[in-house]
Amino acid sequence: MSHFSASYSVTLRVRLDDRPGTFADLARAIADAGGLLGAIDLVRVESGAKIRDVSVFATDVSHAEAIGRAARAVPGVEVENVSDRTFLMHLGGKIHMDANAPVKTRDDLSMAYTPGVARVCQAIADDPDDAWNLTIKRNTVAVVSDGSAVLGLGDIGPEAAMPVMEGKALLFKEFGGVDAWPLCLSTKDPDAIVAAVEAIAPGFGGINLEDISAPRCFEIEERLRASLDIPVFHDDQHGTAVVVLAALVNALRVVGKEMSKIKVVVTGVGAAGVAVTRVLMAAGVRNVIGCDREGSLYRGHEGLNPVKARYAEETNPECFRGSADEALSGADVYIGLSVPGAVSAAAIRTMADRAIVFAMANPTPEVMPEEIAGDVAVIATGRSDYPNQINNVLAFPGIFRGALDVRATTITDGMEVAAGHAIAAAIAPDELSADYIVPSVFNRSIVPAVARAVARAAERDGVARRPTEAGVNA
Amino acid sequence: MSHFSASYSVTLRVRLDDRPGTFADLARAIADAGGLLGAIDLVRVESGAKIRDVSVFATDVSHAEAIGRAARAVPGVEVENVSDRTFLMHLGGKIHMDANAPVKTRDDLSMAYTPGVARVCQAIADDPDDAWNLTIKRNTVAVVSDGSAVLGLGDIGPEAAMPVMEGKALLFKEFGGVDAWPLCLSTKDPDAIVAAVEAIAPGFGGINLEDISAPRCFEIEERLRASLDIPVFHDDQHGTAVVVLAALVNALRVVGKEMSKIKVVVTGVGAAGVAVTRVLMAAGVRNVIGCDREGSLYRGHEGLNPVKARYAEETNPECFRGSADEALSGADVYIGLSVPGAVSAAAIRTMADRAIVFAMANPTPEVMPEEIAGDVAVIATGRSDYPNQINNVLAFPGIFRGALDVRATTITDGMEVAAGHAIAAAIAPDELSADYIVPSVFNRSIVPAVARAVARAAERDGVARRPTEAGVNA
Repeated sequence: MSHFSASYSVTLRVRLDDRPGTFADLARAIADAGGLLGAIDLVRVESGAKIRDVSVFATDVSHAEAIGRAARAVPGVEVENVSDRTFLMHLGGKIHMDANAPVKTRDDLSMAYTPGVARVCQAIADDPDDAWNLTIKRNTVAVVSDGSAVLGLGDIGPEAAMPVMEGKALLFKEFGGVDAWPLCLSTKDPDAIVAAVEAIAPGFGGINLEDISAPRCFEIEERLRASLDIPVFHDDQHGTAVVVLAALVNALRVVGKEMSKIKVVVTGVGAAGVAVTRVLMAAGVRNVIGCDREGSLYRGHEGLNPVKARYAEETNPECFRGSADEALSGADVYIGLSVPGAVSAAAIRTMADRAIVFAMANPTPEVMPEEIAGDVAVIATGRSDYPNQINNVLAFPGIFRGALDVRATTITDGMEVAAGHAIAAAIAPDELSADYIVPSVFNRSIVPAVARAVARAAERDGVARRPTEAGVNA
Repeated sequence: MSHFSASYSVTLRVRLDDRPGTFADLARAIADAGGLLGAIDLVRVESGAKIRDVSVFATDVSHAEAIGRAARAVPGVEVENVSDRTFLMHLGGKIHMDANAPVKTRDDLSMAYTPGVARVCQAIADDPDDAWNLTIKRNTVAVVSDGSAVLGLGDIGPEAAMPVMEGKALLFKEFGGVDAWPLCLSTKDPDAIVAAVEAIAPGFGGINLEDISAPRCFEIEERLRASLDIPVFHDDQHGTAVVVLAALVNALRVVGKEMSKIKVVVTGVGAAGVAVTRVLMAAGVRNVIGCDREGSLYRGHEGLNPVKARYAEETNPECFRGSADEALSGADVYIGLSVPGAVSAAAIRTMADRAIVFAMANPTPEVMPEEIAGDVAVIATGRSDYPNQINNVLAFPGIFRGALDVRATTITDGMEVAAGHAIAAAIAPDELSADYIVPSVFNRSIVPAVARAVARAAERDGVARRPTEAGVNA
């Protein structure tokens, strides 16, 4: 992997002697070390020298260190310090709390706090539904994790999971206007997690579960959905499912096939695999074969855990038995939510004509796009350095925006399917191509479109407390 | 009670005919109805009319309604709508979450979220102490309540408690620069509350418990202090105690008495009474007699709950037995944390010369200041409409600011005593008087002074993770 990433960028604070050529020497040294120049800021001017901040993109940590060493070796250049831009932006965390209105006078205090606040409390005590009007509940989501399945890092615990949950909260706000707050739990016991989330729920309008390992995530989500009257959404399951659906809708348009007639093979029947299958079937797919490491799941398969057993009941209509590679023969769509090498490039070549491959293992896909280029019609991955990145950021901000806008009591399959179609529709028919089936996360039309679609679906499914006509976030 | 309060103010949106005298008629009608004019804003001008927002202070809800009716009766005035300013400022809640840095580009995303965030997570997994540098933990406090003892309203439940907890969070930010987030719990079971707070603790640098009824609050706080390595502070206990100490320090200066020689009678041995007594004794008071509804607590008193039994062991050195009124005979200080009428005005008159009375029952004090004016030297209450308001807002922002700045593991008696003295010192010796023993909450020097005193005390008591020299909130 030799592509440049901001996530491996450093800022060199350098003191450059004031004579022609010093900067040129520095720039050459950085180039020779393979670094790509970013922003160059003048920090201050001293007698005989200029102090500049020079941002440089590298390909990994040791490359960034090598660039620092190269800069230090340039005559006339003194490197005052090298900061890792990613760590720099994390100092003190990525989010904060703020006031909606200032408290500058005794009058402000008497309305925002005692004695005035008592009347507001009493109004909610008299009618608890008023909490949706008179508190932060209507726009607030808890981002809850136990840190057990964080990115590719695994079980790193609650403190180490915080940067991801803060990032998630940040994206909720930036993309969806949702006030999310991270809660990383010091327990991995499903009973304790369920109890803690039930306990803190009254002040929130929704719960986003995140990075909780399977199979505990299924039980936790199911129990919370049963006991709470606000949406509970495990993003690793449902967020992924919605974006996969969006990508598949557009990929099928590109290859000219129909949802109801395709054969889909899924590897990885964990959190994401189960949810993806469920949403695809809710959207009209009939033939899905799920495979774990041992091969296909089918009715009558012995020794499956309850989640997989239910999965086997509801999928694989022809009761195919065999390996994932074998299942691929004649398949229209392959969806990898597993590990590198889960299927072979050779098996991919046995798929039907105009095949679609979503290889989403992170950071290394099940099959590398290079290996099967030309053999299939559409390829998508979870990576930003290939076309068609399947990215949950496309889904969760709009889904919660829509759910909060109608004060939904839960998130239904119908709301997820609607979200998937709304994301797909962000690419106009004449823009669609094999390399452009997933819109950019920076396309600002997506969140409002997803929110509207989700709100309408919530109303259709009878889970909206508030009609959509009342307007969005009024 | 006939004083005007912003907490009972309304804004009338009125359409006034454009001829001389219309506004004068409206102003006269509001005055005749006993309303006090506040801000008057021009909203827009229409042909033949002006639309204005007129804010009016009233004394209670029915008074505000009467003012609206009076305005409606004025010829040439059309009242478009009457809004209750207190409810208006609560619409949608009083706080929100925000980003420390925007996410506008793919580079921002790759540093704040995947893939860059993984390196930050890994750094914390390798050294969990890095959570204090690389996450929001270092400036974040959870404001936790079960809604069981909210203001004078009692057990109104978690949703109805939210406006108070949001208000508290707002004050944390405005006064202390602390990012507080409200968590109102759907359980009143001490085991469940302890478990929930322990579960959510990893992302917070401190826990502010609020409005949890006694005696559960003692057990909950004690267990959390034992299990968590961050400060746990029940404000109804300790915040009150710190401000009472501050007021007492200054009151004793006014009357020229010494902490170690005074006799103090406390009515109300609940959350606040126990904590106040503890802090006063930590500050040097030796003779405190606590009284509940039945009279004084003393060693050997039968039938006391464990908290009161321990209290009886540690106080009342002369083992006085009798009613609160009897205990007051010859006392230097009376501290009421109970109910109106807990002591009589006649008994107050039996106190020692230059007596000090803190009557803090809310909203009606144990004895009304008018009844004992002239009989005692210093009077304080919990109310903003008398001199010397004992207000927790003076304490908690600075205490947590100081505790977070040194990453304290807990809050010690020494930190509370230091906070009390710092608040007292905000009034210069030559400014002190019987009517000015408590500084204004809007005195912006208080929080930094309290924070410094608390941070130094934390270091002295060996509970600071980070030396004070490192600077405040660096």
